[in-house]
Amino acid sequence: MDNMQFDQHISRQFNSDLEALKAHLLQMGGVVEQQLLDSIQSLESADSALAQQVLVAEIQSNNFEISIDEECTRILARRQPAASDLRMVLVVAKIVRDLERIGDESSKIAKMAISLSEQNDGQKGYVEIRHIGNHVRNMVRDSLTSFARFDVELALAVAREDKDVDQEYGSAMRELITFMMEDPRTISRVLNVLWALRSLERIGDHARNIAEQVIYLVKGKDARHLSLPEMEKLVQE
Amino acid sequence: MDNMQFDQHISRQFNSDLEALKAHLLQMGGVVEQQLLDSIQSLESADSALAQQVLVAEIQSNNFEISIDEECTRILARRQPAASDLRMVLVVAKIVRDLERIGDESSKIAKMAISLSEQNDGQKGYVEIRHIGNHVRNMVRDSLTSFARFDVELALAVAREDKDVDQEYGSAMRELITFMMEDPRTISRVLNVLWALRSLERIGDHARNIAEQVIYLVKGKDARHLSLPEMEKLVQE
Repeated sequence: MDNMQFDQHISRQFNSDLEALKAHLLQMGGVVEQQLLDSIQSLESADSALAQQVLVAEIQSNNFEISIDEECTRILARRQPAASDLRMVLVVAKIVRDLERIGDESSKIAKMAISLSEQNDGQKGYVEIRHIGNHVRNMVRDSLTSFARFDVELALAVAREDKDVDQEYGSAMRELITFMMEDPRTISRVLNVLWALRSLERIGDHARNIAEQVIYLVKGKDARHLSLPEMEKLVQE
Repeated sequence: MDNMQFDQHISRQFNSDLEALKAHLLQMGGVVEQQLLDSIQSLESADSALAQQVLVAEIQSNNFEISIDEECTRILARRQPAASDLRMVLVVAKIVRDLERIGDESSKIAKMAISLSEQNDGQKGYVEIRHIGNHVRNMVRDSLTSFARFDVELALAVAREDKDVDQEYGSAMRELITFMMEDPRTISRVLNVLWALRSLERIGDHARNIAEQVIYLVKGKDARHLSLPEMEKLVQE
């Protein structure tokens, strides 16, 4: 085997390592998306069996976090990637953590669903949960698609959606607080809905973080801590 | 310059890169610790000017996050570290994110302090804020010290404290919810205290994350998603 063949061999192996890494991250994404969907449904339909499933699935996403992290470390140690390959590994290591957090917040929602299924009195706030929940689920899906396709425009769209979710969250909170003040017997119940909404809002933030990493991956520029117009400008440069 | 000298030269430069990285992380830690201290004090003393300072300091910790992350990427690209050196770079990249989040949660507390200083009616929940706040501040300090000294015993102590904080948080929440139910006029005020307590609880989680990274750094074993006894066993192995 001459040198060039050897180099090609190495680089083929390296590419397949990176492809496997990417595939594992997207698999983990699938698990976490399902957790999120199930947690919202368990809350809406007071289905504590489904909520339990979400808690079980968390073990799976935790294991994914550890194994993908190990994979990143192994690639860095053995392959010593540079430039965009290095960025890919570092971005995967960051996104893994956001996905794990999304799984974590979904479990919190599932726990609220279990509490609420025991109380079973009224559905105040469920419209908001469904609405913001759908919004946030789309964001998570789009952030993963933007990663899979290196699509910075879609990543930007996720950041825009995060702003909408923050506004919807703010107005839902105000409404529910007013409701509690008018009928204090509902406080303990409505607080559970508030916590679930807060988890959804946090999940939106994590989807935005993933989108920022996609912009860094494709553009090589750090998109964190920017306003939306700053981010748009950075992408167009 | 013969080869051995050259190697020594490279490794000296590399060591000083790692030392600088470590120093920058601890500098960022100092900024974030101050943010946390100021946010708690601004809340306790209804000092909205101090709360504003916390919000300004957040820009500083955000900038630290970006520059330390760049430093990590540069070291990985140029020095291609292996084994414990590689672990150090990866651990710093993870801890940076936790520190940034601690700064972020401190800003949320500062915002609650500003709201509360405008309402200015009663101090319900302040004892809990002070108590849990002190606890969490110690955890953040100890987690950074455990990193600076590679002290796994201290890292374990942080994980133990996190469990205590979670319990204190739970009982503070129950008490404040009962208080709101008894006097619904306080709902909007007490909710601000609840949010601040929740931020403190989250900061405790981040300190625990830092401690887990220190265990990984020193022991080379992943300490995430473990119960306390599992973690103790892992450290003793």
